[in-house]
Amino acid sequence: MQTNPLYTHKSIRKYKQQPIDDETINKIVDAGIRGSNTGNMQLYSIVLTTSDDVKRELAPAHFNQPMVTSAPLVATVCVDVNRMSKWCKVSNADLAFNNLESFITASIDATIVAQNMALAAEEEGLGICYIGTTTYNPDMIIDVLKLPKGVFPLVTLTIGYPDETPALTERLPAAAIVHKDRYADYSDSDIKALHAEKEANPLNKKFVEENHKENLAQVFAEIRYPRQTSEAFSERLVETLKKQGLM
Amino acid sequence: MQTNPLYTHKSIRKYKQQPIDDETINKIVDAGIRGSNTGNMQLYSIVLTTSDDVKRELAPAHFNQPMVTSAPLVATVCVDVNRMSKWCKVSNADLAFNNLESFITASIDATIVAQNMALAAEEEGLGICYIGTTTYNPDMIIDVLKLPKGVFPLVTLTIGYPDETPALTERLPAAAIVHKDRYADYSDSDIKALHAEKEANPLNKKFVEENHKENLAQVFAEIRYPRQTSEAFSERLVETLKKQGLM
Repeated sequence: MQTNPLYTHKSIRKYKQQPIDDETINKIVDAGIRGSNTGNMQLYSIVLTTSDDVKRELAPAHFNQPMVTSAPLVATVCVDVNRMSKWCKVSNADLAFNNLESFITASIDATIVAQNMALAAEEEGLGICYIGTTTYNPDMIIDVLKLPKGVFPLVTLTIGYPDETPALTERLPAAAIVHKDRYADYSDSDIKALHAEKEANPLNKKFVEENHKENLAQVFAEIRYPRQTSEAFSERLVETLKKQGLM
Repeated sequence: MQTNPLYTHKSIRKYKQQPIDDETINKIVDAGIRGSNTGNMQLYSIVLTTSDDVKRELAPAHFNQPMVTSAPLVATVCVDVNRMSKWCKVSNADLAFNNLESFITASIDATIVAQNMALAAEEEGLGICYIGTTTYNPDMIIDVLKLPKGVFPLVTLTIGYPDETPALTERLPAAAIVHKDRYADYSDSDIKALHAEKEANPLNKKFVEENHKENLAQVFAEIRYPRQTSEAFSERLVETLKKQGLM
């Protein structure tokens, strides 16, 4: 049986009521910090929340997904140019990291931290879930976690010992994802062929039925990620990035 | 000896002239694709470049860093809403992913793909280097790789069998990175204490001397990432994101 988490990741949303000891948490953090990062500037911070009160305050920002309060550990991985800015200030150096380029660079680094943490946790027998709502309501998370200017919550991981064993989710065939040497754009018939297996998946067919749509693409575009919501979240994201001095 | 790449990553910039077989490449890609992603939409593409001609064309975009032409494999991991948009179009669904929120979400997913690929490569005995210049000259990479609207080059990995054994680079102490429950902002004396070890590092002291600066922070802020360059790159990034329909 394949158990390497690189090949067997499943999001875990139900956790045992069993705390994670400090040694294990330190190991997870260490894996995060050892990840590759731009110029070794480490433009990120990790907020580890174990307090039930703080988790309850965070929950509404994540649309009250139950993992946020039921997981023993909630890790919010943030873009952080605040620490670097303060270091430059005490060192009489003029830092210009208040722009989108620096934010994107730091976002890549912060995500590498998060993914190393996720894999380290899984190697320790823990289960994790990426909470995609972090960038939908960043302003609410900033308030709860008291993030100063220069800090932005990018990725949230809920972590705990698994209390469920979900199946591996389907993926598009590698041929849909991989391009040889240069990008080969898709014809309409390529697109149909590459999505055929996904559309035939029984779980996905059930989604289409339950949502009274003609096909799976409509469920994504019109039910799960509708235009109005998508545009409203994006406006709030831009406002928050500006407010945090990152754009 | 610790050999788990989660804890032992070192950027490898010199490679043996030994190609990587298809089975190994497929394994690396498979690890990428198995990573967690938002809504299982897989808003990414992987361009695998092995052609010497295409690598030579890519090199200027990466400021002619030698790894781009000397590595047997160059993987450009891209944000891709083009494939999803085309799927929605052939499915008569109205998709609204032409905004910064969708770009950031897809960036997180694409970076998880890249980091899983990096770790899988390292598990196979390969060495990798993240090429941070990808978001500096995205327009040049878009031209070379023929990336259509909706696709943006986010992360480049050069991959090959190591022909060097560099030392582990230093990191800030975990106390500088980790916050308990909520963010605890740094005082000036915290900042100085948390950076003391980094500043005392002999390699870093050499950087300061060579660059005729007073301290390490000035090397970062004024030599490596000066304001004018940072702001010029950011302007180009914003223009390119708009041109690709991602902002």
